[in-house]
Amino acid sequence: MRTALVIGTGLIGTSVALALRSRGITVHLADHDPGQARTAAALGAGTDSEPEGPVDLAVIAVPPAHVAEALAEAIRGGVARGYLDVASVKGGPARALAELGLGEDELSCYIGTHPMSGRERSGPLAAGADLFEGRPWVLTPSRSTDTEVLNLALEVIAFCRAVPVVMDAEAHDRAVALVSHMPHLVSGLVAARLEHAEESAVRLCGQGIRDVTRIAASDPRMWVDILSANPGPVADLLSELAADLDGTVRALRALESADRAERGAGTEGVREILRRGNAGQVRVPGKHGAAPAVYESVAVLIDDQPGQLARIFADAGQAGVNVEDVRIEHATGQQAGLVQLMVEPSAVPVLTAALRDRGWSIRQ
Amino acid sequence: MRTALVIGTGLIGTSVALALRSRGITVHLADHDPGQARTAAALGAGTDSEPEGPVDLAVIAVPPAHVAEALAEAIRGGVARGYLDVASVKGGPARALAELGLGEDELSCYIGTHPMSGRERSGPLAAGADLFEGRPWVLTPSRSTDTEVLNLALEVIAFCRAVPVVMDAEAHDRAVALVSHMPHLVSGLVAARLEHAEESAVRLCGQGIRDVTRIAASDPRMWVDILSANPGPVADLLSELAADLDGTVRALRALESADRAERGAGTEGVREILRRGNAGQVRVPGKHGAAPAVYESVAVLIDDQPGQLARIFADAGQAGVNVEDVRIEHATGQQAGLVQLMVEPSAVPVLTAALRDRGWSIRQ
Repeated sequence: MRTALVIGTGLIGTSVALALRSRGITVHLADHDPGQARTAAALGAGTDSEPEGPVDLAVIAVPPAHVAEALAEAIRGGVARGYLDVASVKGGPARALAELGLGEDELSCYIGTHPMSGRERSGPLAAGADLFEGRPWVLTPSRSTDTEVLNLALEVIAFCRAVPVVMDAEAHDRAVALVSHMPHLVSGLVAARLEHAEESAVRLCGQGIRDVTRIAASDPRMWVDILSANPGPVADLLSELAADLDGTVRALRALESADRAERGAGTEGVREILRRGNAGQVRVPGKHGAAPAVYESVAVLIDDQPGQLARIFADAGQAGVNVEDVRIEHATGQQAGLVQLMVEPSAVPVLTAALRDRGWSIRQ
Repeated sequence: MRTALVIGTGLIGTSVALALRSRGITVHLADHDPGQARTAAALGAGTDSEPEGPVDLAVIAVPPAHVAEALAEAIRGGVARGYLDVASVKGGPARALAELGLGEDELSCYIGTHPMSGRERSGPLAAGADLFEGRPWVLTPSRSTDTEVLNLALEVIAFCRAVPVVMDAEAHDRAVALVSHMPHLVSGLVAARLEHAEESAVRLCGQGIRDVTRIAASDPRMWVDILSANPGPVADLLSELAADLDGTVRALRALESADRAERGAGTEGVREILRRGNAGQVRVPGKHGAAPAVYESVAVLIDDQPGQLARIFADAGQAGVNVEDVRIEHATGQQAGLVQLMVEPSAVPVLTAALRDRGWSIRQ
């Protein structure tokens, strides 16, 4: 690949362009807002001039609802040898392309893809060539996809240092509904219960609800777009969850019963929901795709002076221990907290002894 | 206060005992498992011998279901001047005490309390005098509670360096249902959807679902106990959430409609759910009780060598910047990741410049 055209210079488009530029590829940038393309060009993502002839690859990086239209226009204009899009849903754009009258033949030069790497911020200024590093990048080839186009896409993914994953378009949409869209809405539904809660209750929030509701802070406009492009699979999952939720409410009501046998059934029902939660949670991949249970935590008491964390990490590094993850639990209304260092189980005694030696207070 | 008796030497009881001991108070330890009391004593939490006469304060730190019984026995045995319990629900024990025939007069020497500081681990070995530091500790005095007993409880809370919060018992139970019990069950319900999911879908999990499902990993036995003691308020909240969930499914189904007006209504419905999620999320207190939005993040690319984090924090410390929170986002299947440093907005340019100067790769 020597030349590329990126259509849509938001976060994803500009980040792809930067990664391609860093490999010496000539990148042309286009956006319905020419100012945005100019900004991306100023950031070193390429040139906002039009290519003189067909490029090797066109990357369609416009919002999901506009992918089919932009793609049809590009393919019919013959602007490139191969085409890919990067929208977060894949079934909708494929159906829209069929509705626009593009047949299998015309679409053999196109492959639908999805890099799994969002950010809270958007736009070219938030972009970076490293945005995709180590993240899954889904490819959804159809039976008619040219091998040459598949290979162009794999080349882009390699340049972006992402990990290619091949999936069926419909399976992809069900998967992102499961691991992203459904949890996002549920996080919002939990957070919504706090909107009109009493301040005295909200004061008691701890790390648990803080984690559950974190993604409820995302931009509603972007999420209306995403959910609008994938409503069926998300609704299916939420309906399954609603059935489990009804069962949970029934089990809790049974626990209020005066009847001993009914209370016993309630206990069983609650226990089963909690067990299934455990069973699902261990499947969530942590760092490096490992289950989170692989690491153990060492808890260190700190106060809130600059340099405290530096000293802990320096002391851990000197002990030869690699800290895999970290969580800071701050005390409410106070200048003190706990740092949970997640490390390989074999490193726990080494780290504990090293930090104690250096005067840290470790919680067992 | 000079003498105390701690009944139940698990995580909370032993931690309270350690805090009291550190202030020079004579602490007697009792447990239905004498070995557990011996372990707590060996950790420096006090003596497992019986007190010779009534102590100043008895701390009832047994599981919620056994609080009323243990308390009635202690009060009728006259083991102390004042009594408090530390169970995570308050309405149930109060009703159970009434059922055991304890009147207002007998209960004037008792106050129900709840320190908001759990851990993933339990038992005396996980205890520490600092467990409660800076955390809310709820007090639920009734009209008949002696002021002397309230002051004994406030003394314990001060010794534990926690923050006292006075609430009505029923309001407390509704509050913990909202900020702890309901989110816990919902986290489990989301995680449960992954139990039988295809591996190719689970591979796509990112930080969002990881955070939403983290607390689903907790011990089901402990949570069956907690939920059994507070089923009504939790069921009420889950029913409200179920109604919102049904509305969300209807909105998503409307988005699948061929009818433009219906699709518009679906968009509005989804937008409103997301808006309410935003509005609730900003109320969740972050560190020091501040809303999380107060901090901004600086993202630094790292590889996975020991000492990388140490260097970042040392460089931040040298720049005089206090890192308020940190999140490590690891790449899937790769030895690289991003560190998100949360800092005061005014510190962002200082930190960004300082880290760039020292050769770090910063994502804008």
